[in-house]
Amino acid sequence: MLLFYAPDITTATTHYVLPEDESRHCLKVMRLQVGDEIFLTNGQGTLFKVKIAVNDLHACMVEIVEAIDNYQPMDYYLHLAVAPTKNTDRFEWFAEKAVEIGVSKITTLCCENSERTSIKSDRIVRLMIAAMKQSLRAYLPSLEVNVGFKDFIRQSQTFAGQKLIAYCGTASQASVPLQEALKKDKSALVLIGPEGDFSPQEVELALANGFVPVSMGDMRLRTETAALMACATACIVNQKL
Amino acid sequence: MLLFYAPDITTATTHYVLPEDESRHCLKVMRLQVGDEIFLTNGQGTLFKVKIAVNDLHACMVEIVEAIDNYQPMDYYLHLAVAPTKNTDRFEWFAEKAVEIGVSKITTLCCENSERTSIKSDRIVRLMIAAMKQSLRAYLPSLEVNVGFKDFIRQSQTFAGQKLIAYCGTASQASVPLQEALKKDKSALVLIGPEGDFSPQEVELALANGFVPVSMGDMRLRTETAALMACATACIVNQKL
Repeated sequence: MLLFYAPDITTATTHYVLPEDESRHCLKVMRLQVGDEIFLTNGQGTLFKVKIAVNDLHACMVEIVEAIDNYQPMDYYLHLAVAPTKNTDRFEWFAEKAVEIGVSKITTLCCENSERTSIKSDRIVRLMIAAMKQSLRAYLPSLEVNVGFKDFIRQSQTFAGQKLIAYCGTASQASVPLQEALKKDKSALVLIGPEGDFSPQEVELALANGFVPVSMGDMRLRTETAALMACATACIVNQKL
Repeated sequence: MLLFYAPDITTATTHYVLPEDESRHCLKVMRLQVGDEIFLTNGQGTLFKVKIAVNDLHACMVEIVEAIDNYQPMDYYLHLAVAPTKNTDRFEWFAEKAVEIGVSKITTLCCENSERTSIKSDRIVRLMIAAMKQSLRAYLPSLEVNVGFKDFIRQSQTFAGQKLIAYCGTASQASVPLQEALKKDKSALVLIGPEGDFSPQEVELALANGFVPVSMGDMRLRTETAALMACATACIVNQKL
């Protein structure tokens, strides 16, 4: 099953022209021909079965055969808010793997101890799209970058699910294992701090706003690894057995 | 806590000279001085508390203060045998993360559908050592490369724990969820195939030799992501709650 991204396709579309890079990938790299079937997604949950109609290398046209709404949605909601890593490669790896394993939304947080204050979203979004296509998903997780910690806490006041904060400080004796917290609610928001951890003021603000401290065990994990473990934990806890 | 790697240190050692790169890192990068305390590990489970004695940039000498045997061992055993990825970055990323999260041994397998037949171990071992130091572990997982699939199955005949094979083929309806399998035994060996999956003959050989098919859910994961999920699953299943 070959899946391509067509962000502006709708269920009203009968024919669609692929962007140049997708046209080239389709016709030159994969050597598909008129009549061959491929799949498109708009990243909003709809999967389109389509047939190649015009094999123009720059503008491959496809005919929509069938549209499947709500294609294999995640049956849980996970929003990861992570301090960006100094090395952008590491954050990019995390974003790609999070899409493969399952995530609903990713936010990058500006924290007191962040090694990097800002991150460019374009490149990360491209990687997330590629991961969505490769893992045959029809939902593109949203990415929100460079949100200040206080602003994020304020934004999250309306979040109806569980609000969790993972940090290393002394008060974490009161923490709950992340896997236990995630079993309680199918909807969760998890904050993952920078290598230098959240500051005491940031922790205090989060706790005052209903965030529950969680721990992922005794391991000393890099930020992107902690974020990935949170992602993997949610996936494992929600697996149908 | 700063941890350095000293492979040839033993409990009989009273004074030790750090390799040049560790000396430089210690004295120039971290700017430590005579009398400062750091930690060394031999990667075999012993943690050494040491004091800087001679601040030679090329050959920093330390005096052993205390040796702690069997420092924070993993309380489960996990051996991951993985087909190497075409892109070595991806495999390196997996090896680093596996050490952070917890793994006992990594083997790379030569399978029929492997995208890459051989892998160079030196670079990967260096990354694994760096990950061990960064995550404050005293056990360096072993790495064995380029083992033929049949040879590996034969070698594993003496393995006393659970033998598990993760693959996508039609016979996997009979598979057990990986997390369930890992709950049964604290000692496990998991085979992760290449992107093109294990061949039917490879699967048959594994099943005939006591390997149990496992599944990690409906996700379509890249090889290195599947290997990492196996690692994360073992970690999560074995966490003390």
